[in-house]
Amino acid sequence: MSEKIISERRVGEHIVNESWMDQAQQWIPKLHEQTVYPERIVRSMSDSHAFQGWRMETIGPASVLPKQTLRKGDEITLDFGQHLVGYVTLSLLNVRSNADAPLRLKLTFGEMPCEVAEDFSTYEGWLSRSWLQDEVLNVDVLPGTVTLNRRYAFRYLKIEVLDTSIRYDIQIKDIYCRAVTSASMDAIPPLPENIDEELAQLDLVSIRTLRDCMQTVFEDGPKRDRRLWIGDLRLQALVNYETFGCNDLVKRCLYLFAGSRLEGGQVGACLYEKPEPYVDDIYLYDYALFFITTLWDYYEATKDRETLEVLWPVAREQIDIALKRLDARGVVQDDDTWYCFLDWHEQLNKQAGAQAILIYSMKRGQWIARELGLSAQEEQIQMQVQQAERATLHYLWDEEQGFFISGEGRQVSWASQVWMILAEVVDKDAAWALLQRLMNHKEAIPMNTPYMMHHYVESLLQCGKKEEALAQIRAYWGGMVKDGADTFWELYNPDDKTYSPYGSNLINSYCHAWSCTPSYFIRRIFASTAC
Amino acid sequence: MSEKIISERRVGEHIVNESWMDQAQQWIPKLHEQTVYPERIVRSMSDSHAFQGWRMETIGPASVLPKQTLRKGDEITLDFGQHLVGYVTLSLLNVRSNADAPLRLKLTFGEMPCEVAEDFSTYEGWLSRSWLQDEVLNVDVLPGTVTLNRRYAFRYLKIEVLDTSIRYDIQIKDIYCRAVTSASMDAIPPLPENIDEELAQLDLVSIRTLRDCMQTVFEDGPKRDRRLWIGDLRLQALVNYETFGCNDLVKRCLYLFAGSRLEGGQVGACLYEKPEPYVDDIYLYDYALFFITTLWDYYEATKDRETLEVLWPVAREQIDIALKRLDARGVVQDDDTWYCFLDWHEQLNKQAGAQAILIYSMKRGQWIARELGLSAQEEQIQMQVQQAERATLHYLWDEEQGFFISGEGRQVSWASQVWMILAEVVDKDAAWALLQRLMNHKEAIPMNTPYMMHHYVESLLQCGKKEEALAQIRAYWGGMVKDGADTFWELYNPDDKTYSPYGSNLINSYCHAWSCTPSYFIRRIFASTAC
Repeated sequence: MSEKIISERRVGEHIVNESWMDQAQQWIPKLHEQTVYPERIVRSMSDSHAFQGWRMETIGPASVLPKQTLRKGDEITLDFGQHLVGYVTLSLLNVRSNADAPLRLKLTFGEMPCEVAEDFSTYEGWLSRSWLQDEVLNVDVLPGTVTLNRRYAFRYLKIEVLDTSIRYDIQIKDIYCRAVTSASMDAIPPLPENIDEELAQLDLVSIRTLRDCMQTVFEDGPKRDRRLWIGDLRLQALVNYETFGCNDLVKRCLYLFAGSRLEGGQVGACLYEKPEPYVDDIYLYDYALFFITTLWDYYEATKDRETLEVLWPVAREQIDIALKRLDARGVVQDDDTWYCFLDWHEQLNKQAGAQAILIYSMKRGQWIARELGLSAQEEQIQMQVQQAERATLHYLWDEEQGFFISGEGRQVSWASQVWMILAEVVDKDAAWALLQRLMNHKEAIPMNTPYMMHHYVESLLQCGKKEEALAQIRAYWGGMVKDGADTFWELYNPDDKTYSPYGSNLINSYCHAWSCTPSYFIRRIFASTAC
Repeated sequence: MSEKIISERRVGEHIVNESWMDQAQQWIPKLHEQTVYPERIVRSMSDSHAFQGWRMETIGPASVLPKQTLRKGDEITLDFGQHLVGYVTLSLLNVRSNADAPLRLKLTFGEMPCEVAEDFSTYEGWLSRSWLQDEVLNVDVLPGTVTLNRRYAFRYLKIEVLDTSIRYDIQIKDIYCRAVTSASMDAIPPLPENIDEELAQLDLVSIRTLRDCMQTVFEDGPKRDRRLWIGDLRLQALVNYETFGCNDLVKRCLYLFAGSRLEGGQVGACLYEKPEPYVDDIYLYDYALFFITTLWDYYEATKDRETLEVLWPVAREQIDIALKRLDARGVVQDDDTWYCFLDWHEQLNKQAGAQAILIYSMKRGQWIARELGLSAQEEQIQMQVQQAERATLHYLWDEEQGFFISGEGRQVSWASQVWMILAEVVDKDAAWALLQRLMNHKEAIPMNTPYMMHHYVESLLQCGKKEEALAQIRAYWGGMVKDGADTFWELYNPDDKTYSPYGSNLINSYCHAWSCTPSYFIRRIFASTAC
């Protein structure tokens, strides 16, 4: 299909459609700003009963801060009361005498207590330590007001006075964060009246999560990776349609993914926005296919037929590319590389999940072709879907076990079953029976992320099990809230609360796009008006 | 006299003349900028024969830098070929793959090899460690160009790659310093032809020292303290008149000192320029009196009678204030506080030096009064000078030893003898005999700084000993050049090359105003045209 995509050229190892990239840049949203002041002075306390072993003890209201004298070696931790993304300004005053030498501060920003309680020098994760948010700040002029250049994602700020001089101490006369987001809280429709307090709370935390991830693109996490990932975008967009309604931002992100693709035409897994938007080298089988899903969801929400028409060739191209990975049997070829995401789990085999997502996405491709009146394409995709479904049932369904299996090891996982249900490879009743068997299969590879949990909830709804879906939301996301979440976390394993796929919970993102979907469920599925 | 100073008001513990401060701010000079690139890639090598134990070994020309790949843990040191004061810009490129995490660099700026060779964490001096010039720089966008906010004084820059990510390394595609100074090298008159190569080199190093200290005030040192000290200003002004001729900058500094004084009317020892100019709390007996000297020197160089008239009341006030410290005998009261500077030496007693500087300054006050036709004041000062001289010869001259003595311990120091000669308390022949005795007095408290050495050279000239003065310049400042000085140092003790009055040679300033006077001597005294 790529011959239909006009004005593309090869830039390095990428394909760039400058016209689409230019359009996407015109849709950069204006950021809303809000000045937020700290609420409390706190201290992190080791507490084995607290989440990840840290509890925040209040020392006093932040209003006493301007009068508090800080000497060399002193430290103070401020709690801004909520998760923020933005730019921090400090107004500093020297006291006792003149500042006859620069002031040297260490600032540590934490989304969570662990980040201001633990020593970053002990960090041994495999993601770069540079994601941990600390700065050494040298201030030459006192009294003075300093605005840090970088954007931080945080609720807590620890300030350590590394150096003053023998002549002076300091006071922090003012400190605030200019919080930024492209989302407007004013745009949120009121919650339906049938929503109880617990769900209202989950909705609020979801909304704040999405708000802080919504910048000039839908970022996955404002602390880390601060990038546009299509897996996150897809879920963020679903929540956005029910809440902020920044639909042009979804359009912008779709054009960016379409406008900067990998050398074979694949939609990349993620994009960097700066210095100029460009696609990362990571290709993930499922993520590329989610371009189709995201485009269809966008059309359903907006009825923007022009975008659907313009970007359809790219969506269609993803089907063609994905089909090339099928073996002679019509099954996705498995290997040991990181070719498909599905979930963070070291043992998880991706074959069955990839196969399911292929089918799931092709079905949406078929809907688009139908909507655009492209009947030949519609029929072709329909045939491809049928072939893939047949191969799936023939090769990936283990009749004896009653589970979809994945890879040479015939692995049974939650991810495989959930995605096969979402792909509607089995009917509603069979799906529910499958899930019930799964709940009793203790060896099945479990789920590890809110992202996978979202799809599990979707699969329950697919089975018509609203009650069970709601209970799952209350248990899982509600668990995060009970554990202190202001915004929903990238990772949450109730049985291992310091779980990290990166080797350290310090580097986990604690405001993460793919975790914000309770609002989608609450507003779209569970609100009485929609029921 | 203070009733003659109009429009003054008390601000906190200071006296402020807003009209003068406003005028001073109008004379803020424009800074000249020059882009300077590194010359070489170097490595600091421990070498017991090298100055302070460190030698710089050249690894290669800086031209290879853009092709050099730096990985996490790598470090590189650049030699910019000369001492600079300015703002550094780096253009950074990620290589191997995309920069999927921020880059974290440590930058260490050194005027001298010791600063990039030794570990700042071992610093135990009593001046703030914050003067040591290092930064942790987090760069969010790569490829990217970063200009650091702060100004640095340096020749060497060590770059340590603290963190990249597992996916990328970096290259430094471009790096330069936008060097700043209010001095223009184009303004320097050519050296007279009789000046030999060695003196020409001393002149050049002096000029570069002054150049880098000349910013929007005459700073004492651009690394530390970056302030306007009157002791430095006085000597800088003398060199400036012979070289850059930025006479309005001297005027600006005089107005600043006059316009922001201590609560008793004293001219402070130093001034801060930002956020708004204000006097520091430090009062030094000698430094306050140097306001008179600096004003007189300025008038001699410029014939700016208006400034002389306007600022004379402040100068006169300094005499009145200084005289109040005399005891019933007419001798400066000594105590254990840091009431007078003279030189950095822990054992040095200040009484005799203070007395000499009182006389020296009053004589210049008398000249100003005469120039302004204020004969009553002239006569009064003359009488005060005579009284002070009588008291000096009666109480501070030890006939038996043949030395001026200082304090209860009747201390003999170089500082006391030198300043008594400069104050012309003894005549030329007696002065030379005194200096000759001093050279054989092994217990006399020695000199420790180029500042004091300047006055010793002046005292030799006062004795008519041009040859000896010149030999002293060649030996002392020439010694610094042999030891690798690009700019002259704050401290230089040929017998103890790591000497620091601050507990660590790391914190010494290696481009320091008070050391730049060889150009004054060479151009004013030793040039054949002036002889």
